[in-house]
Amino acid sequence: MTGKPHPAVAEVRLAVRKLLTEASPESHVCVAVSGGADSLALAAATQHVGSRMGLRVVGLTVDHGLQEASADTAKRTADQLTDLGLDDVRVLPVVVSGAGGLEAAARRARYAALRAGSDGGLVLLGHTRDDQAETVLLGLGRGSGPRSIAGMRAIDPPWGRPLLDVTRQTTEAACAALGLTPWQDPHNVDGRFTRVRLRREVLPLLEDVLNGGVSAALARTAAQLREDLAALDDLAADLLEAAADGEDLRVADLTSVPPALRRRVLRTWLTRAGTPELTDAHLRATDELVGNWRGQGGIALPGGLVARRAHGRLICDKHDR
Amino acid sequence: MTGKPHPAVAEVRLAVRKLLTEASPESHVCVAVSGGADSLALAAATQHVGSRMGLRVVGLTVDHGLQEASADTAKRTADQLTDLGLDDVRVLPVVVSGAGGLEAAARRARYAALRAGSDGGLVLLGHTRDDQAETVLLGLGRGSGPRSIAGMRAIDPPWGRPLLDVTRQTTEAACAALGLTPWQDPHNVDGRFTRVRLRREVLPLLEDVLNGGVSAALARTAAQLREDLAALDDLAADLLEAAADGEDLRVADLTSVPPALRRRVLRTWLTRAGTPELTDAHLRATDELVGNWRGQGGIALPGGLVARRAHGRLICDKHDR
Repeated sequence: MTGKPHPAVAEVRLAVRKLLTEASPESHVCVAVSGGADSLALAAATQHVGSRMGLRVVGLTVDHGLQEASADTAKRTADQLTDLGLDDVRVLPVVVSGAGGLEAAARRARYAALRAGSDGGLVLLGHTRDDQAETVLLGLGRGSGPRSIAGMRAIDPPWGRPLLDVTRQTTEAACAALGLTPWQDPHNVDGRFTRVRLRREVLPLLEDVLNGGVSAALARTAAQLREDLAALDDLAADLLEAAADGEDLRVADLTSVPPALRRRVLRTWLTRAGTPELTDAHLRATDELVGNWRGQGGIALPGGLVARRAHGRLICDKHDR
Repeated sequence: MTGKPHPAVAEVRLAVRKLLTEASPESHVCVAVSGGADSLALAAATQHVGSRMGLRVVGLTVDHGLQEASADTAKRTADQLTDLGLDDVRVLPVVVSGAGGLEAAARRARYAALRAGSDGGLVLLGHTRDDQAETVLLGLGRGSGPRSIAGMRAIDPPWGRPLLDVTRQTTEAACAALGLTPWQDPHNVDGRFTRVRLRREVLPLLEDVLNGGVSAALARTAAQLREDLAALDDLAADLLEAAADGEDLRVADLTSVPPALRRRVLRTWLTRAGTPELTDAHLRATDELVGNWRGQGGIALPGGLVARRAHGRLICDKHDR
């Protein structure tokens, strides 16, 4: 091809170049391709950018075995990747089974196969800004705190998501400009799936009610949230190190710390001490040993452990010690 | 009345008692009443709890003058409050005008009147968990970061919001149990208003798609978010004090600080230095003077100010100094 690339093609390439420059993989980069517009546009851009950066580009496509002729679909996608000039193209067959519903089981199987097929390299995924918005809404419905609405990270080894600021529409336009025919996953129009209903019903309604720009707004807020959460996590790690005295914590190092930060320190400390799971109530009760100390007794925790305060230290040990 | 109160009545009273115990007003407490179920149930509970705590309970109802017979409606609400036994009942007439649409103008006028009518006391507002969910969704649509989705605070003087964990349905049940007939605000069914459409269209659809519990989930996440934001704000205030050297900042005190925290410090510092407004781009460019220092020049900021780095300090001064 000669001349300037179509704006949509250029936008996808720029996003891939930005991520690959930041992540700087050594010898090869993988790209996971379902055959849909998002991942097909991603594969084309990765081939273009990766080859110019001296990287071997490996296409991975998963055959879930869920639909009739799914092997044919995977083969067709693999052929498209070969036509795009990728250095290596692999079809990864998986068996979908296990708890938590079809959608969750398929996702688990897919990620396990991609990880295994990546040879330790970075695996690029075609998640777009629209996917990010859906993820934030799903997290809102769970109500399990800021982390659940912070969305996906662009670099989260072995995963890389270059398209989190690119719309699905742009990937469709890029495919059209490149003469690539995406595969329409029947699951993407199947209203039984929560994510599909968020995409097809909730987000369009929200766009209408809030006068547009919702996906961009969700992605913007999620990005700032990830930075805030990273800051609190970093501070908590430093604080845990500073307050540690063997396996105990010095209370004096924690008293003047804001509660939300202190609870993060305590969560890590209790997890390392061996508590298998912690509820918010456990954390808050343990935190009261620091923030609201009235000589109260130990806090019973999962795993037969007890957190208690003695001689200016927090101690977590077995119930019967 | 004798016997145990209806569960809904008891729940609203408990919520009011909890907030009044925490806020501990001195002599009186006001309650803002539109006449709808939320604020009417709140008024009844505040009268019950406040009088037992030795507080004078003042009912405030605003006449927006927006609908025909709005004076009659305000009068009717005032009569209900008098019947409930409130110590003092005042109708506050306001004139709605100004920029930003009818909804925004009415809100501004209402809050100004309530503040003026409060005699420096706490003003309880009837915002429920459903209102909180709508506020979070509105904030998501703005996309202006975590603060915009952190929702309303329970204690935010002069405002107090005891019902943020109580559903609208509970306030309706409480009114029914007490024989109180709420006023149906026609604005609450008017689909021109964004908030009404969120309530009547978006939230029910989200409830359906995400299998229920959405309002509670939104409120839960918003509450955790408020704690995280408070922690970061507290840490930023401490850090600003520690790093300040007259009007400048010592760079060495900022270098090992996570960027999201550092940008909060810089925002406060630049605002105090007189920048009238700051975009995210301004903040990030200023932050690069610390986090990505390559000897770059000063950052031009609104208000004719420049932020620059010299001799290990950050300096913000007039362009022509």
